[in-house]
Amino acid sequence: MGEASERKARLRRLRVEGESTRSAILRAAVSLASVDGLEGLSIGNLAAEVGMSKSGLYAHFGSKEELQLATVEEAARIFDDEVSRPALSAPAGAPQLEALMEAYFEHLERRALGGGCFFSSAAMEMGTRPGPVKEAVAAFGAGLDGLLHGFAASAIEQHQLPPDEDPEQLVFEFNGFILAASASFILSGDPAVLGLARQVVRRRLRRGR
Amino acid sequence: MGEASERKARLRRLRVEGESTRSAILRAAVSLASVDGLEGLSIGNLAAEVGMSKSGLYAHFGSKEELQLATVEEAARIFDDEVSRPALSAPAGAPQLEALMEAYFEHLERRALGGGCFFSSAAMEMGTRPGPVKEAVAAFGAGLDGLLHGFAASAIEQHQLPPDEDPEQLVFEFNGFILAASASFILSGDPAVLGLARQVVRRRLRRGR
Repeated sequence: MGEASERKARLRRLRVEGESTRSAILRAAVSLASVDGLEGLSIGNLAAEVGMSKSGLYAHFGSKEELQLATVEEAARIFDDEVSRPALSAPAGAPQLEALMEAYFEHLERRALGGGCFFSSAAMEMGTRPGPVKEAVAAFGAGLDGLLHGFAASAIEQHQLPPDEDPEQLVFEFNGFILAASASFILSGDPAVLGLARQVVRRRLRRGR
Repeated sequence: MGEASERKARLRRLRVEGESTRSAILRAAVSLASVDGLEGLSIGNLAAEVGMSKSGLYAHFGSKEELQLATVEEAARIFDDEVSRPALSAPAGAPQLEALMEAYFEHLERRALGGGCFFSSAAMEMGTRPGPVKEAVAAFGAGLDGLLHGFAASAIEQHQLPPDEDPEQLVFEFNGFILAASASFILSGDPAVLGLARQVVRRRLRRGR
């Protein structure tokens, strides 16, 4: 192996290590923010959590805002993996709506992030703080709304839901189910609230059939 | 007027002034917390907001936690005044559910507190922080659930909703409408989302008739 390709291999190895470090740091950041909020997330307390120096973390994220944005991006990746993807592989329409909700309830139930639902909290916390972090949270919300809208429209098209149903209203209702489940679960810590949430979803999807 | 009664009158005057100062401070605290969250509320930034010394505020609230608890109590008082009371004076059952939601949407729309909905944010923020403040927020939630449950049960009893409806499920759904309206409104700042929320509520209450 020549000098040039050795250097390339070394650089590639370093990049891979750097990426897996970055990804481990971000996983910890999502977890911290799911408990303390995105504003509670600072380079200082994240450094303490992952056992790195603050200057080491500054090398990854130049500012608190950059760290918050990277954390939102990582949380969106986790949500896509754990909630959106299982829904997309269900049969089109109402079964996708049901699969998305079930995946979400399981995500809450196993306390995947350590705290509550990252985006329920982030919407309430950052909604009143204009800026790029709020925009990133709103963009995630718009993406989820788009997904729900597609599932709802397809459910109506396939006569799984009555023709006078409105996809926009269904998106609003399903967002409500998500937020109500999230709020009741973190306030009560009681998995029984998710049983009630499941009944509501099933009943909503059965309606009109 | 004798010396004793003069002293009594002076004390009464001082107490009234103290109470109105306290109430003005708490109104400012609810407003600050509706933007920065209950954890963002400190004796320091509240002192700056109301133009008092920190030691002056410490005389009213001995600690951050006491201040947070008094702020939750004041927010509950505002919610009762602006949302629960109008609902209670509507005709029993479904009209009460609709009046409660309408009063809530108006409360959001006129940005009564400066930020978003105090309790939507507080539930998400304090849900992951065990302690007396979380308990106070949960107690408010339980009170609101009780109110919704009574309205829903009465709507079923009076055949305004079908007999196979379940009050617990209705409480969950209406909590969802509240949270979804609150989250969409603070993220988008667009009153049109409240128009959609109103349609959803009307349709939900019409169902089965």
